[in-house]
Amino acid sequence: MNNHRQRNGDVWAFENAHNRKQQAQSESGVGDGYDDGIILGLDGGTTSTVCVCIPFFPSSKTHLPDPLPLLARAVAGCSNHNSVGETAARATLEEVMAQALSKLGSNRSAVRAVCLGISGVNHPSDQERILNWLRDIFPGHVKLYVQNDAIAALACGTLGKLHGCVLIAGTGCISYGFAEDGREARASGAGPVLGDWGSGYGIAAKALTAVIRAHDGRGPQTMLTNKILKALGLSSPDELIGWTYADPSWARIAALVPEVVSCAEASDQVANEILLDAVQDLFLSVKAVIERLNLCGEDRSASFPVVMVGGVLEANGKWDIGKEVMKCIQEHFPSAIPVRPQVEPAVGAALLAWNFVMKESKENCHG
Amino acid sequence: MNNHRQRNGDVWAFENAHNRKQQAQSESGVGDGYDDGIILGLDGGTTSTVCVCIPFFPSSKTHLPDPLPLLARAVAGCSNHNSVGETAARATLEEVMAQALSKLGSNRSAVRAVCLGISGVNHPSDQERILNWLRDIFPGHVKLYVQNDAIAALACGTLGKLHGCVLIAGTGCISYGFAEDGREARASGAGPVLGDWGSGYGIAAKALTAVIRAHDGRGPQTMLTNKILKALGLSSPDELIGWTYADPSWARIAALVPEVVSCAEASDQVANEILLDAVQDLFLSVKAVIERLNLCGEDRSASFPVVMVGGVLEANGKWDIGKEVMKCIQEHFPSAIPVRPQVEPAVGAALLAWNFVMKESKENCHG
Repeated sequence: MNNHRQRNGDVWAFENAHNRKQQAQSESGVGDGYDDGIILGLDGGTTSTVCVCIPFFPSSKTHLPDPLPLLARAVAGCSNHNSVGETAARATLEEVMAQALSKLGSNRSAVRAVCLGISGVNHPSDQERILNWLRDIFPGHVKLYVQNDAIAALACGTLGKLHGCVLIAGTGCISYGFAEDGREARASGAGPVLGDWGSGYGIAAKALTAVIRAHDGRGPQTMLTNKILKALGLSSPDELIGWTYADPSWARIAALVPEVVSCAEASDQVANEILLDAVQDLFLSVKAVIERLNLCGEDRSASFPVVMVGGVLEANGKWDIGKEVMKCIQEHFPSAIPVRPQVEPAVGAALLAWNFVMKESKENCHG
Repeated sequence: MNNHRQRNGDVWAFENAHNRKQQAQSESGVGDGYDDGIILGLDGGTTSTVCVCIPFFPSSKTHLPDPLPLLARAVAGCSNHNSVGETAARATLEEVMAQALSKLGSNRSAVRAVCLGISGVNHPSDQERILNWLRDIFPGHVKLYVQNDAIAALACGTLGKLHGCVLIAGTGCISYGFAEDGREARASGAGPVLGDWGSGYGIAAKALTAVIRAHDGRGPQTMLTNKILKALGLSSPDELIGWTYADPSWARIAALVPEVVSCAEASDQVANEILLDAVQDLFLSVKAVIERLNLCGEDRSASFPVVMVGGVLEANGKWDIGKEVMKCIQEHFPSAIPVRPQVEPAVGAALLAWNFVMKESKENCHG
């Protein structure tokens, strides 16, 4: 382990104390309750990063305990390298894993597998780069998996089974799906420059644009002007331009979504249209995935889960974006089963890791 | 001068040699042909920054010579602080002014006035901050003016007179106008986050989005896919996401406009619609300014110039965005007079400086 501890000494300093404690426990015969090791599951979104620890269940157990024991949980900031850059993303990931292990009073030698569901993984080269970060942190025998955060989000709605479609709409948005035969497809998730208009960022950017257009005479007046200026403590729409460019973080802009929802609820036409467009955009992403994977089957009656995750889709009062998106989906695909997950995406990532390890060990047995 | 030379010593090092040369010329009685001093005019766009030197014409001359003598010209990169950050923007401005003076064999002591027409100036606080940069560079007696680049662009079409409307569409876009009574108005120019869809950046971002949508099944197939991937040397639309975030410079994305125009010329429906939308967006900006300033007068017959500047508006072959925008403007405002400036915006900035100095000296005489 020592050669793996050097890169970021401060973050992992707690391990020395824990090692001494464990040695004492081991000598006294007192175990720590997770003798088969632990699994780390991470959900790395554009706003925050969550890490959970669950026990590793050996292959002899065919069913997972319900509820699943959550040994520890830690939260840190954004780990999307496209949003905050590589160095910050990597530091955040390491920090949140160290925090979780430290809370548990454990250390990296107890880890059997790590699964990272992380936004911004769009290409095999992204995956490989992040796997290399993990290889620097963990000893060679730890199983490491890096997936797009949408896959972990799907797994949190299906308890680890990769079948159906997931829609995430938080600061960013993406739709991802798996057919029973393992084929996969995605739509959206390309970021703000490339038109994710159903995301929290997209909704808020459109609202800011509407304020500018009302101000310079290109668009109709809207309640969004006063609402947003007040929320940001600004006195004129001119100041929005400087505000926008003062900090390029997507989450800062996406945080304005509640102002848009509140204006739409007060019957502001401009805000209402922005939300209706977002609903259409999110529905189109799910529709593209369902159709490419033919999830409904030939007779359009095969049932499949549609897992809905993220702040934009959570009930926002009278104007409920998630409910409207689901309504569109069920009108077009009556066999779709809406799922609001009971566990969080980080737990989905941990369950994915468990499934991957089980599958690999079965394949090794049969091979 | 010495206290003004210290901040960026390397850039201004040439002045010492010139000072010695000038002293020698002065002792030998040989002048440099601009005894009344010089004016610096700068056009700071999102792609490049141009600095020109013209002679200072004393108030006794009521008409400017035609053609205007251009003493020196220098070009540097982007100086929009919203795009490249303050430090880089400031360094670029200082560098391009030093280059122009060095080419002329002159130095800062010969400068009477500096006018900066610069994109990203959206609020009095932006103006004040950039004026402070200039105050650090020049001695106290030099007259300093900082304006939005649109105002210098208008001045280059009207030879310094602030009347009428200007539309700039390059990497960014903005419309700006002045009524005869001095009232001013602007539209757009808020940057990519805030919906400048008629800009080169906006056109190219929509084209990239169309490629992603065609790829993930949300939108129709388009020639833009092959055209853009080929131009960028990429093999799959998935790689566009990483490409987009690898470098946040707006100009890099806007450089794809010719690919969009070429697809539209080859009758690609998606590219064609992107350009038609851009034309509408640019027309709406001009319309908002004309109507707010009531440039047509009560009987809608007052004539006024509409100055058109920037790469997006220059003839692009069969599909000519500038021509289409002008067509819309003249259909709605028959008294508008299209102007394609014969001098560049940096010269407009220099003429503005001259006008400002003249106006101030007249006011001082009458005061």
